[in-house]
Amino acid sequence: MEVYPLSAKYTMIVGSIALDRVATPEAQSPLVLGGAASYASVASSYFAPTRLVGIVGRDFPAEHIALYKSHQIDIDGLETDEARKTFFWSGRYRAKFAGRDTLDLGLNCFEKFSPTIPASYRSTPYVMLGAIQPSLQLHVIEQMNTRPKRPFFLADTFDHWIKTAHDDVVQVLRKIDMLVINDEEAELLTGEDNPYRAGPALRKMGPSIVVIKRGAYGALLFHLAGHFVIPAFPIEKLVDPTGAGDSFAGALIGYMAVTNRTDFGALKKALAFASATASFTCESFSVKALSDAGRLEIDKRFRALVNMTRF
Amino acid sequence: MEVYPLSAKYTMIVGSIALDRVATPEAQSPLVLGGAASYASVASSYFAPTRLVGIVGRDFPAEHIALYKSHQIDIDGLETDEARKTFFWSGRYRAKFAGRDTLDLGLNCFEKFSPTIPASYRSTPYVMLGAIQPSLQLHVIEQMNTRPKRPFFLADTFDHWIKTAHDDVVQVLRKIDMLVINDEEAELLTGEDNPYRAGPALRKMGPSIVVIKRGAYGALLFHLAGHFVIPAFPIEKLVDPTGAGDSFAGALIGYMAVTNRTDFGALKKALAFASATASFTCESFSVKALSDAGRLEIDKRFRALVNMTRF
Repeated sequence: MEVYPLSAKYTMIVGSIALDRVATPEAQSPLVLGGAASYASVASSYFAPTRLVGIVGRDFPAEHIALYKSHQIDIDGLETDEARKTFFWSGRYRAKFAGRDTLDLGLNCFEKFSPTIPASYRSTPYVMLGAIQPSLQLHVIEQMNTRPKRPFFLADTFDHWIKTAHDDVVQVLRKIDMLVINDEEAELLTGEDNPYRAGPALRKMGPSIVVIKRGAYGALLFHLAGHFVIPAFPIEKLVDPTGAGDSFAGALIGYMAVTNRTDFGALKKALAFASATASFTCESFSVKALSDAGRLEIDKRFRALVNMTRF
Repeated sequence: MEVYPLSAKYTMIVGSIALDRVATPEAQSPLVLGGAASYASVASSYFAPTRLVGIVGRDFPAEHIALYKSHQIDIDGLETDEARKTFFWSGRYRAKFAGRDTLDLGLNCFEKFSPTIPASYRSTPYVMLGAIQPSLQLHVIEQMNTRPKRPFFLADTFDHWIKTAHDDVVQVLRKIDMLVINDEEAELLTGEDNPYRAGPALRKMGPSIVVIKRGAYGALLFHLAGHFVIPAFPIEKLVDPTGAGDSFAGALIGYMAVTNRTDFGALKKALAFASATASFTCESFSVKALSDAGRLEIDKRFRALVNMTRF
């Protein structure tokens, strides 16, 4: 149970909530809690008070609601579609986790998702737009109050949207403050296979802050003030990387919210906390290891990252 | 022209010297100076006085000798085989530098290479054994004076030797202080695809210090006192990565020699200097960019690495 400083700002996470079934080279999960917004909101909740916007179906287990609540996540923005089932995803990782394939997908309630932001959420200062359809990301941006101050928007996207809704993605880029994507998506958007060229190219497309995730190799930060490299926190045993990138982004927005800072110095620390946080996600199926970790263990990994990188 | 501190120790580099012809996705080199010992000795010479042990043929251009000399590299250990030509290698990098293929290979004088260490070299305190046949690495180790103090041995190897001379490689590991190899070779030797497990496994095989190189992602250091991550210094344009790993190792041995330290703190700085040094190698064919760089530019990249990694 986190106790947030009085000065902490709120985060709002908009994104998918899913029931996942994941096969890895070594194990098979039962039907578990998944979705970018689940991972990101739990990660964010370690740093700042967190609001969740998403949709679930009539079959969504009460225990998952209880898990959100155990992290003090505000679920006033969580809609339940009594007519449909929850978004379902089943996937299988290839040998050595080199890519994954979707085995089964049931959009269900998620198909008609059009996020309505509760009035009480509209002044949230730090907003994360998960990799939902870019037109929906724009729809969320439009609903937020711009006075007295517009929110800070962090957005994720994914290759499918870059290929099928490229113009909308470009529109989103113009309206956000920070983009968090992986190296392949960065190349797809910019045509640059060198992330050190893709990062600045993405900044020119709109977001003043760009983070390029490189999986097991960590992440790169591109900021007006310079660039920065954080390694992935090394884990003993990779169980399931699903949601690691979402946890990474959730920790970023949470750290920015609790410090109310987005300068280069704060962002560097945010990336280190994000690397520490996301490493737990890889140690179990679903949000279990992330949810069980506790802030003290995240802080320990943050300090270990200092020791691993300082010379 | 480097001025070494009076306290600087010597390094000795043993390895291949070659004439290379390299094709990249974007360009084709003429016949240029190559070979692990060429790259490593130039890199080492930026830090410490450097001795070179290798063999060349009757066709070895005088300008390459002049280049070694311009870096004050001692070439008393450089043998010339008047009966044969110089070791020749021609290779082509695949698209996006994802691997390379050997197009032509002429071992020539290198086939009969059996390094004889000049008497004046036998007390050199910091020795780098390039990735030559492991039985030759053992032969070099045997020739070095062990009194009053045995040298510090850094060795490299490569997949071919691990596959064809595994027992000799294992013997070498038992006799060296430091192993510098890439991630694929580390997996081949240990069966561990996670470098954070491969590193400690390699330390158990002999060397107390292990460095695992990860190409464009940098390198990992495993030491009794802990582990450490250094990113690759980002370059504007990759021209040819040939020799980057050798330059990396050469800078490592050079930095250890000039500081006469092999503790964790010194090793971390050594890795940062090695990353800075190797980045120049990638910016041209052959040793040109490395040779032209100058120590001040290497120091600039070292400081840039501090800024890129400190949080």
